[in-house]
Amino acid sequence: MNTVLKALVDKHQPTLNAALRAVQTRASWSPYKDSPSTKIHGPDKPVQGKAAFEARLGQRYILDQPGIVSWAGAETSPYTGQALGITYPVSDPKALIAAGAAALQSWRKVSPDVRVALCLEIAQRLYDRNFEMAHAVMHVTGQSYVQAFSGSGPNALDRGVEALAYAAKAMADIQPTATWQRPFGKDNVSLEKTYTLMPRGLGLVICCASFPTWNAYPAIFANLATGNPSIVKPHPIAILPMAIVVEVCQQTLTEYGFDPNVVTLAIDTLKEPVAQKFIDDPAVQIIDFTGSPRYGGHLERTITGKLLFTETAGVNSVVIESVADLKTTATALARSTSLFSAQMCTSPQTIFVPKGGIKTGSGHASFDDVAQALKAAVDKIAADPVVAAGIMGAIQGQVSLDVIDRLRAALASKPAAKTVRDATPYAHPDFPKARTLTPLIVTADQTCADLYAEEQFGPVLFVVAAENADAAVKEATDLAAKHGAISSYLYSTNEPFIDRSVEAYEAAGANLSINLHGAMWINFAAAYSDYHVTGLNPAGNACLTDLAFVAARFRIVQRRQPSAV
Amino acid sequence: MNTVLKALVDKHQPTLNAALRAVQTRASWSPYKDSPSTKIHGPDKPVQGKAAFEARLGQRYILDQPGIVSWAGAETSPYTGQALGITYPVSDPKALIAAGAAALQSWRKVSPDVRVALCLEIAQRLYDRNFEMAHAVMHVTGQSYVQAFSGSGPNALDRGVEALAYAAKAMADIQPTATWQRPFGKDNVSLEKTYTLMPRGLGLVICCASFPTWNAYPAIFANLATGNPSIVKPHPIAILPMAIVVEVCQQTLTEYGFDPNVVTLAIDTLKEPVAQKFIDDPAVQIIDFTGSPRYGGHLERTITGKLLFTETAGVNSVVIESVADLKTTATALARSTSLFSAQMCTSPQTIFVPKGGIKTGSGHASFDDVAQALKAAVDKIAADPVVAAGIMGAIQGQVSLDVIDRLRAALASKPAAKTVRDATPYAHPDFPKARTLTPLIVTADQTCADLYAEEQFGPVLFVVAAENADAAVKEATDLAAKHGAISSYLYSTNEPFIDRSVEAYEAAGANLSINLHGAMWINFAAAYSDYHVTGLNPAGNACLTDLAFVAARFRIVQRRQPSAV
Repeated sequence: MNTVLKALVDKHQPTLNAALRAVQTRASWSPYKDSPSTKIHGPDKPVQGKAAFEARLGQRYILDQPGIVSWAGAETSPYTGQALGITYPVSDPKALIAAGAAALQSWRKVSPDVRVALCLEIAQRLYDRNFEMAHAVMHVTGQSYVQAFSGSGPNALDRGVEALAYAAKAMADIQPTATWQRPFGKDNVSLEKTYTLMPRGLGLVICCASFPTWNAYPAIFANLATGNPSIVKPHPIAILPMAIVVEVCQQTLTEYGFDPNVVTLAIDTLKEPVAQKFIDDPAVQIIDFTGSPRYGGHLERTITGKLLFTETAGVNSVVIESVADLKTTATALARSTSLFSAQMCTSPQTIFVPKGGIKTGSGHASFDDVAQALKAAVDKIAADPVVAAGIMGAIQGQVSLDVIDRLRAALASKPAAKTVRDATPYAHPDFPKARTLTPLIVTADQTCADLYAEEQFGPVLFVVAAENADAAVKEATDLAAKHGAISSYLYSTNEPFIDRSVEAYEAAGANLSINLHGAMWINFAAAYSDYHVTGLNPAGNACLTDLAFVAARFRIVQRRQPSAV
Repeated sequence: MNTVLKALVDKHQPTLNAALRAVQTRASWSPYKDSPSTKIHGPDKPVQGKAAFEARLGQRYILDQPGIVSWAGAETSPYTGQALGITYPVSDPKALIAAGAAALQSWRKVSPDVRVALCLEIAQRLYDRNFEMAHAVMHVTGQSYVQAFSGSGPNALDRGVEALAYAAKAMADIQPTATWQRPFGKDNVSLEKTYTLMPRGLGLVICCASFPTWNAYPAIFANLATGNPSIVKPHPIAILPMAIVVEVCQQTLTEYGFDPNVVTLAIDTLKEPVAQKFIDDPAVQIIDFTGSPRYGGHLERTITGKLLFTETAGVNSVVIESVADLKTTATALARSTSLFSAQMCTSPQTIFVPKGGIKTGSGHASFDDVAQALKAAVDKIAADPVVAAGIMGAIQGQVSLDVIDRLRAALASKPAAKTVRDATPYAHPDFPKARTLTPLIVTADQTCADLYAEEQFGPVLFVVAAENADAAVKEATDLAAKHGAISSYLYSTNEPFIDRSVEAYEAAGANLSINLHGAMWINFAAAYSDYHVTGLNPAGNACLTDLAFVAARFRIVQRRQPSAV
């Protein structure tokens, strides 16, 4: 190893060691700060980041990609309603695959610790460009500035570093060499064995539109660490963040003397999707997908003989059996459903409440009392444009407004459904043309299951009357088992009830948050600590991040020969 | 944990610890003795084992299985040509699945260390019955008595214990609980997190005909350790060994108070195969397959959304570039191709030799000299019936005789092919009616690639003239990449040649043995040390055994709630 690479490994070793400790202990840790405060970052970086973003507008995003055949890009800011006007190099898939396959041959020979250190260097550089990234994420996804900075920045990088730690751990499990000795008959056999880690092939990373970096980083870093070049295919309406990622990867690879085609960008359009061309190619052996259950399910039902990791979505449920303070619980739920206007894979959608009401610290609350408390808590957020802007951000796509429109129409024909709170826009203080929508709140019963038991990708909360709390848990966990769930929520002050409910969530393969309130978003999933997606229900087949996420991304080729006498 | 289970865990802890050390260091280790010598086992066990086997003949093999609808069995001894006359309970697949699904519910709650210890207890009991197992294996597969005792006994159990060690390691990687604390705004959030290991679903273990225990043990033990009940489906011509395994599993489970349906036997016939019924059931989530590339490839191309581990077969090649002593090398190759009459997945088939001959320690040897040396070495084994019986055993199926017949016919139309040694039976000293066949040896060139580049499941060695040694390596590694290879062999005294060849084998994903001679069979794969199957070429998609073999067999379901104040 040359001295530059040695220095790179040494530079990042403490971070890697800390990440390895964190994934073991599952305690809180991060090498990054997830607040955009100038007290942390100084006064210049926010300004420079915004300027860097603005300088991109209306320009070609130059990347030195192989096989460029055209330029494309059709991103529109949910905040301004304006096209970003950025175009990206569209490469012939065959050229990307050929370049990736060539890059694999040199990348696989780079020692694992250098590959891991290079990923940590990439992560550091992405962190250094995080103000630019925050504006990029904000203006393609609709995330609020603060969330784009934290959730799509350090929190996402942490997920990537977590995957790196697992990859490093899984690779370290294999000795590079061993001496093996045993008697066979009269022979004392002594063999020297060499175990070489081999990448599996090219990785295709299919990114989602609403939160592209969070799932892409683990996939990219897990691939790169284990020797597999990555072809990054962003959603056509959210390219810019991933173009920045690919640019940083390529710059870092080049600077350290590696083939920049270890990471490339695959651009497509809504009209002409390109993913299948990569999926069908024998050189592509690993597919990481985040996105719709529809396409994710298609991949799960059709891909054979390749590694496939999916995170799609499901119906995240809440069961309220009893609470210490109704307003506190309603606030926690209102905040989390308002966060990014329920466009997160962890956003709660369907709240089951016993039809006879619940026990609270200050007496009985009826079913309607619960619904009204939720309404009041959402109203409070929606009423203050500055607060609303920081929490709700904007609605990424017209599709989510359509979802809510269709829901209104469908609810009109449901006698049991009552609209407690209509979905209305709020006036964004900085972007008057922002596409915004505050949550719709509807009370319903089992006759509305066709609506609340499907993922509705827009800001809506169903408050569903259940026969009783145990029936609520049964319905919530049946939903998870059948339609998938990434996060489930349970509120109860009754310990025996919690104990018996836990079992049902486990059997449904549903991760459960119990009695979460306060300043932490109840749907916050902490890297290094929270296992995200169980793989046991239809919301995805893979966990971010565990050993199974990394262990099959590489293979072992061995050789053995007699020990020198 | 009750005291009986605690004692079970304590009893096997030293073995588990030693296995964990062995898979880490890859050094030689085994808790078992792989020689049938009475010096080790005493005079009684061999006699009792044989008697136990003989007592089974002509009888029903009673197992307390659910949903028994009929009895079937059509095994014939390759040694006597006689039907064993044993019938086994045929259960309705739906009943086995229902029983397995019910068993999963209790088995998943048994703590991982108890599950691992129970598997070690099963392994110990199988070892205790290994003389019986040796006769069972011998009379369904045709393995020699010594090989059946060692290769299908301790060597196979070691593979199982190796998988257990990996399963224990992967599960131990997950903390059962954690406390997580970080500030959010003004809140100091403190959460208690619980991580529950969950099985993935039922495992189907499809066993091969010729070496059933060796691949079944890792699959069964990996499944059981991680909480997944296993349905064991033996090949219809080799049921008895797996019936013994299932019986021991069920007895041990019952004795320790667990549901015996954690392991069940699925019987089918050649006319009415049953595997697909299990594969298609949503309750079955893990499929381990060992057998033909044809059916294995079918599974690889059709199974989606489930875990699939395959070991099939390929074309194992040898390249001879130069040797210290031709007779020594020829003997090593002759022994390994003679072992079980080349019916092993590691048996060499196609030997590439430079057409201009090779350098030896005593001067030049022509291509024909090499072929003649191989002939002489095989002749020497074949000429002594006692030696031949111990090494070659018998031919399991008529199919392998047919393969050789078809080859003879095909070779007749190949001008470049010459038969150096015809395949002839040898007279087994103990079983005059044994179906035996000594290896066919043929010299050939590239015009015969249609024959030597396909797996020929019968005793044949092709000695193929290559342009030169580098061309030989290229052809051998191309073969591995295209048709698969489980074991590749290289002989050379030329270090630079070895060094540049190693690269090609790695790129082909082919495990390589270099310059192996002597008492150890060159195709011996040592548990805890040799990674078996790379998963990088068509000979199988999984490695026995690594973290990837176990890590996705279980999932993690988490819950979190505020720490008590």
